[in-house]
Amino acid sequence: MPTREDILYFGAGPARLPTSVLTAASTSILNHNSTGLGLTEHSHRSTLSSEILTGASNALRQLLSVPDDYSIIFMQGGGTTQFSSVVYNLLGYWVQRELEKAEDLEAVRGKLRGAKIDYLVTGTWSQKASEEASRLVGEEMVNVAADAKAVGGGKYGKIPEESAWVLTEKEKSIFTYYCDNETVDGVEFPNFPMALGDGAERLVVCDMSSNILSRKVDVRKYALIFAGAQKNVGTTGLTLVILRNDILTRQPTLKTLRSLGLPIQPIMMDYKTIAKNGSLYNTLPIFDVWVAGEVMKELVTAGGIETQEAVSGRKSDKLYATLEASPKLFQIVPMQGSRSRMNICVRILGEGLEKEFAALAEAQGMTGLKGHRSVGGIRVSNYNSISEAAVDKLVMFIEAFAVAHSV
Amino acid sequence: MPTREDILYFGAGPARLPTSVLTAASTSILNHNSTGLGLTEHSHRSTLSSEILTGASNALRQLLSVPDDYSIIFMQGGGTTQFSSVVYNLLGYWVQRELEKAEDLEAVRGKLRGAKIDYLVTGTWSQKASEEASRLVGEEMVNVAADAKAVGGGKYGKIPEESAWVLTEKEKSIFTYYCDNETVDGVEFPNFPMALGDGAERLVVCDMSSNILSRKVDVRKYALIFAGAQKNVGTTGLTLVILRNDILTRQPTLKTLRSLGLPIQPIMMDYKTIAKNGSLYNTLPIFDVWVAGEVMKELVTAGGIETQEAVSGRKSDKLYATLEASPKLFQIVPMQGSRSRMNICVRILGEGLEKEFAALAEAQGMTGLKGHRSVGGIRVSNYNSISEAAVDKLVMFIEAFAVAHSV
Repeated sequence: MPTREDILYFGAGPARLPTSVLTAASTSILNHNSTGLGLTEHSHRSTLSSEILTGASNALRQLLSVPDDYSIIFMQGGGTTQFSSVVYNLLGYWVQRELEKAEDLEAVRGKLRGAKIDYLVTGTWSQKASEEASRLVGEEMVNVAADAKAVGGGKYGKIPEESAWVLTEKEKSIFTYYCDNETVDGVEFPNFPMALGDGAERLVVCDMSSNILSRKVDVRKYALIFAGAQKNVGTTGLTLVILRNDILTRQPTLKTLRSLGLPIQPIMMDYKTIAKNGSLYNTLPIFDVWVAGEVMKELVTAGGIETQEAVSGRKSDKLYATLEASPKLFQIVPMQGSRSRMNICVRILGEGLEKEFAALAEAQGMTGLKGHRSVGGIRVSNYNSISEAAVDKLVMFIEAFAVAHSV
Repeated sequence: MPTREDILYFGAGPARLPTSVLTAASTSILNHNSTGLGLTEHSHRSTLSSEILTGASNALRQLLSVPDDYSIIFMQGGGTTQFSSVVYNLLGYWVQRELEKAEDLEAVRGKLRGAKIDYLVTGTWSQKASEEASRLVGEEMVNVAADAKAVGGGKYGKIPEESAWVLTEKEKSIFTYYCDNETVDGVEFPNFPMALGDGAERLVVCDMSSNILSRKVDVRKYALIFAGAQKNVGTTGLTLVILRNDILTRQPTLKTLRSLGLPIQPIMMDYKTIAKNGSLYNTLPIFDVWVAGEVMKELVTAGGIETQEAVSGRKSDKLYATLEASPKLFQIVPMQGSRSRMNICVRILGEGLEKEFAALAEAQGMTGLKGHRSVGGIRVSNYNSISEAAVDKLVMFIEAFAVAHSV
């Protein structure tokens, strides 16, 4: 009958949450702030809910220094819902902007010929996002500007050199999409790609589902950032979206979209509708917003994003250094320079050793270490809620395992 | 500092949940079944989660006697997401069925001319659903077969007589949509509309968000039933969908949709993808599934849907009878025959009396009684989790209020 202290969970998401927040949640779900009602029972339109929304939004704004001309909205449906939403809304924005320039639908129609959405495909999730764009707007509008599998011998593990990227010319680029951290493949962008400029030249959209709040981000470089909450921020069912306000205001009419043969977003994927209604166009799961808010407030109290970035770096450095010390036993999957601080993917060389590693670790309460079912191996997920003490214990375990299997 | 026992909450949703379930949830969120991890932290792909999904699905199947050739899927995004999903998927089904008959795209194109989706607009939510269909496929494909506002002098409160409905001829009817219970307006269909046949002639889609599991339903009469969980079943963030299996299998290719100029559903609204992946195409909030499962298992134990139907009827009968006893004070909003057992909407005649009613009730711990902000008045929501004792207390309060304001 293990307690929370007995289990160190390194799963890739849904991820461990701070015990402090879950202890509060345990009370809140039954009787929130002594209101006689649990938080899931309170109206999403109550003053209480409105304060929770504002609190969570403010904490996120503070942590990432979100500029005033960016909005924060909360949505449902996870990252996969955003794969579709960004296509509809950013394409809409691009069309409206061109229409304002040209004031002529025919000119926009012409401009659309050859216009592309650029995808940097560096792992499983950016691949899925690009496939969804192809479903919605057709392959001819999707340009895979970087294809990590092509340069990785059919496997993900290296972000292609920027010099090899084939980005659409700026005039024809609708937006550029990338996934900052690929959970399945353990690949993370070391920093904002130089090739994408400063955010003014190209609209940049980024999926930060698995590394948000683990390091500083210059929000100004992005048109839009989204993140499913269930890894670094909170519970499953909540998605954070940070986007430039002009994406909300510059959107074409349905008539324009129809006459250009472009898809119309379902209302729940319409950012301007969600934003206009303060994220409450329909019933938002306020309990999940509250959990995320509590997690973010703790990060603020602990010293903000700088502290978290330092901690994340220390933890992943230790893990990689320990694995690198036994190169005949541990084969780190991604290449140097593409390695994730959040998901450390490694193969253990030797028949049955991965199974043994996971089983031995589990016997010591360290769980969630199996790699994604599509790629196998071992994966250590090192999100914000993983303490340095937990990493230290895992490091000691890895060292002992290496000694026992020294070759 | 009220306890849960002090507060009788009659809010329209998110609604009260059984204290027994929330007490279990309070433990589960911190350390589920002594696994050392809270339920929101467990992988949605674990055996544990898979058992939770199966358990919830089986309970729903048992409660509503869902036939074997129907699937149950769990989704995110609430009823509003379904407003869009049903349009994409049922239109897709209709096209594919016609294509199988005609084996010729041109014939289907011809058939599409004049084909309509029929909406029975009986309140705020069915109106929103019809508006979303118009956004996605254009007004010309949407037929408001019944317009309750038109017969109600600009207000909702009466389901138009079936004889006055203008349904599209069967051959041209893509599907027929209605909302079984209108939460805002207190309007509920007394039973399955005769005019829609037996489910074989027309595809019938029904929003049961606010009355599901409160009475028996003949699932066979429907192509699809959906319900946001946060009123009668569980927490916000989960949606139940029950649909006929052939809707999953008979779907056109993207190429067919494109060449017919029909919209393509975003992947998260693609029922066949969600079903094929056992509701786990992306990360599903398993905690919410678990809560819904526990609520449904309690309903099974309490005697199933027959018991619940009897209880719901007794509770709403008492409330209506009490209000009807003072007709000079209480004006029930909807007409006889259209009155909801779930949301009892009433106006109190006399300056300031509604405010006084709500305030006095609140002072006695009876809360959530204010009508929807769009219509005002008093609304008593009488979902499954509202006990007969709670209704009795409210009935006594209403009687005392009537005596104090006898006119």
